[in-house]
Amino acid sequence: MSDPRPIGVFDSGVGGLTVLAEIRDRLPYEHTIYFGDTARVPYGVRDLAEVRWFAYEIIRYLVSLNVKLVVIACNTATAAALMTAQRSFDVPIIGVIEPGARAAVLETRNRRVGVLATPATVESGAYAKAISYLDAGIEVYEQAAPEFVPLIERGITSGPELEAAARRYLAPLQERGADVVILGCTHYPLISETINRILGPRVRLISSAGQTALEVGRVLSRRGYLRRPRHAEDLGSSVYVCTADPEEFAALGSRFLDQKIEAVLPASLDPSPRSDAPLLY
Amino acid sequence: MSDPRPIGVFDSGVGGLTVLAEIRDRLPYEHTIYFGDTARVPYGVRDLAEVRWFAYEIIRYLVSLNVKLVVIACNTATAAALMTAQRSFDVPIIGVIEPGARAAVLETRNRRVGVLATPATVESGAYAKAISYLDAGIEVYEQAAPEFVPLIERGITSGPELEAAARRYLAPLQERGADVVILGCTHYPLISETINRILGPRVRLISSAGQTALEVGRVLSRRGYLRRPRHAEDLGSSVYVCTADPEEFAALGSRFLDQKIEAVLPASLDPSPRSDAPLLY
Repeated sequence: MSDPRPIGVFDSGVGGLTVLAEIRDRLPYEHTIYFGDTARVPYGVRDLAEVRWFAYEIIRYLVSLNVKLVVIACNTATAAALMTAQRSFDVPIIGVIEPGARAAVLETRNRRVGVLATPATVESGAYAKAISYLDAGIEVYEQAAPEFVPLIERGITSGPELEAAARRYLAPLQERGADVVILGCTHYPLISETINRILGPRVRLISSAGQTALEVGRVLSRRGYLRRPRHAEDLGSSVYVCTADPEEFAALGSRFLDQKIEAVLPASLDPSPRSDAPLLY
Repeated sequence: MSDPRPIGVFDSGVGGLTVLAEIRDRLPYEHTIYFGDTARVPYGVRDLAEVRWFAYEIIRYLVSLNVKLVVIACNTATAAALMTAQRSFDVPIIGVIEPGARAAVLETRNRRVGVLATPATVESGAYAKAISYLDAGIEVYEQAAPEFVPLIERGITSGPELEAAARRYLAPLQERGADVVILGCTHYPLISETINRILGPRVRLISSAGQTALEVGRVLSRRGYLRRPRHAEDLGSSVYVCTADPEEFAALGSRFLDQKIEAVLPASLDPSPRSDAPLLY
């Protein structure tokens, strides 16, 4: 049995492309649709109800394209909208927080886990909640790293400026003896080399992006939703959609995907009034 | 690296031996200690604070025997005591509810999950909570099956009496169209054949016991805690401890383990007053 429907992946911008890259790497036969809401990026500064509505609009759009699974490849949108979205749609929906939290719980030996994330994600406490749900005895240290996203989007993924910021953010996690650190933002895989070097070989780094891709594979395989082409060369295709300038998306996005993005389609979301949403609590 | 410390498994009685059987089956090199609190069985009729205290006492006993991981192989004790226990001890502690809930979430296609459990477990709502935490859009139907445990303990694991009870309990789950059913009690693997036959091939049956054993394997392997003997014949050994009559435990337990239990040790828990417990909320 083969299920050729695409996987839908969305984010406020290009960060979620690191999740898409991991999905394509692990599930090369799957078709994918990536949706970047670049007209409204970033989500971190908006209120929760607004982010929930954006997520609802985007998932409705992806569902109209017959996706078999949706990945909310954005920490802010996962914290704000995952549960509401799961209640509102029939398609399975996966966020980026639980898979990373779960991997950290499985791997920590001293039960001290560090989380690097944006200020909005840290403020939501979503990782601490998810980890504590799985093992209430684990101490979680969340560290906001406000400079990382701007640096990475300017193309600075190594060098002294990044190094200095990384040392500053990691010091508190090191002081507390965390033996596992979660990269709790989809931008961070681009700087994992620097972070890994500073933390050293005794601390394990967990990428939410990689763990989310593994979870996508588990769900598809256990439900019998994998695409199984007849020929091994028949790899899955990817479609890119964004709400602002497609060329800008392609230029910035290619670095996050670690591969050239050829064509990006402009998205036109149905401009329904907010009152249309069946479930917005 | 090899970690020869034993895994501790406990239950109010013999039911948890189905979890032990799965652990031994999947992790044959691990040493295990099974603790059956047969003097105080069943836990389902006691209040939560009391069950928490029993769990605390037993885990303290197992920790004094240098276990590397504890499995609460009892649904009632997991619902009552897991989080408190995780906060109170350094050793990782795994319950039987989350692994089964997680497997159900991964496997359901129509997002309707049935749960068969004892009245106490159904009343706790623990499976519904665990499933909803992973996918808030899944509908969970919990069915109390009060007759199963008494029948199984009387040795009735097939035949018309069991069949009639099973059909009665399963009918509501079938009517609601659940495509996955969780065996939410450690006794139930002994009657899975009958349940499977009634549900038919289109409904997947998930054994909490089996999923918990898989989770034990994941934690040990990801933390580097597996025992790796030098010779393939050097299998793990098992020790059985109970708080009431050892011979009775051996006779009844052998059916749950599906293997003869040779020796059972009487346990002597430190009779400390309840006020000694550091964390009993």
